[in-house]
Amino acid sequence: MRQPQQDRSRATRQRLLESAIEALAELGWAGSTVAVVAERAGVSRGAAQHHFPTREDLFAAAVDYVTNVRTDWIREHSADLPSGRERTRAVVDLVVRMYTGQIFRAALHLWVAATSDEQLRDLVVPLEAHVGREAHKLAVELLGVDETAPGVRETVQATLDMARGLGLANLLTDDSKRRAGIIDRWAEILDTTLHARA
Amino acid sequence: MRQPQQDRSRATRQRLLESAIEALAELGWAGSTVAVVAERAGVSRGAAQHHFPTREDLFAAAVDYVTNVRTDWIREHSADLPSGRERTRAVVDLVVRMYTGQIFRAALHLWVAATSDEQLRDLVVPLEAHVGREAHKLAVELLGVDETAPGVRETVQATLDMARGLGLANLLTDDSKRRAGIIDRWAEILDTTLHARA
Repeated sequence: MRQPQQDRSRATRQRLLESAIEALAELGWAGSTVAVVAERAGVSRGAAQHHFPTREDLFAAAVDYVTNVRTDWIREHSADLPSGRERTRAVVDLVVRMYTGQIFRAALHLWVAATSDEQLRDLVVPLEAHVGREAHKLAVELLGVDETAPGVRETVQATLDMARGLGLANLLTDDSKRRAGIIDRWAEILDTTLHARA
Repeated sequence: MRQPQQDRSRATRQRLLESAIEALAELGWAGSTVAVVAERAGVSRGAAQHHFPTREDLFAAAVDYVTNVRTDWIREHSADLPSGRERTRAVVDLVVRMYTGQIFRAALHLWVAATSDEQLRDLVVPLEAHVGREAHKLAVELLGVDETAPGVRETVQATLDMARGLGLANLLTDDSKRRAGIIDRWAEILDTTLHARA
């Protein structure tokens, strides 16, 4: 049962990336060193540095990786979403979930750390743009709207910005009850405004 | 021209609070020590500690103070807002400005630091609730809507969450162009949905 070298290397890399997100979400940027992540992943520090030369490389790659895994997963399972009027509520809920879980918490620590770390900022700015574009594309697909119609693009963007705001509101306290009411209302608004323009 | 002791003390306190916000917005939590703030305010470290026994007290008081100054200022100048359909756009713009400037940047650093600092969290959780309630009350007043009508409360909250998301999106890059399109669109949506329910 010898695992080929390439597979082992890929598995190590994945464990490092997932441990990096967990560490960042739990401990924040200051507490998330390469040594902490390597230990959580059960990997030597040297092996971690072989995969990611700098701490900044490791964490930027981690946010990129888990975001891609998440959006791929949502796409694969999108057939399970309800149809008709229930669909909009389900899609808004799904989009908001992308910003109220561990990945957003980790990304937030990275974004905030990047405000006072130039090397990190250079990695995070294009990463933020990429993550934002992917989330936008996914929301358009799931809502099944036509972005060339006037106002649709801005409405989808407003939805994603609202979801980011809900992520922030969930940082220190459990905001799920208030959030559910906002998601209901937002879905009603989207049904009215997006259909009126479709 | 001898300034009474009480006035001098109040002026020192205000300088410390304003310097604390500037330091937090520019340097983040890790760089914002009491010594840094005292130096910026032109006050001795001992005098700073006389006003605020701990670093956490100083920064929580600072966010509270500048938020109150800001909301008071907006209320006093609300007569300058246009009437009719232009009003909604102007109010949304004003609400979003509350979350895209220096105060939000400072508050964000404090919120994120509080995720891994229990003492800070105990101060920040009630502060966040207070700031959120004040912003909500102000938005309801400026929009001139009736919160007892179904859906209105959630729509106003969604507007504030969207504004917080726009604040995040402005953290590392200048997002003002994209933001203007979203504010336009959201004002249109508010005019339709809030008036339909009024």
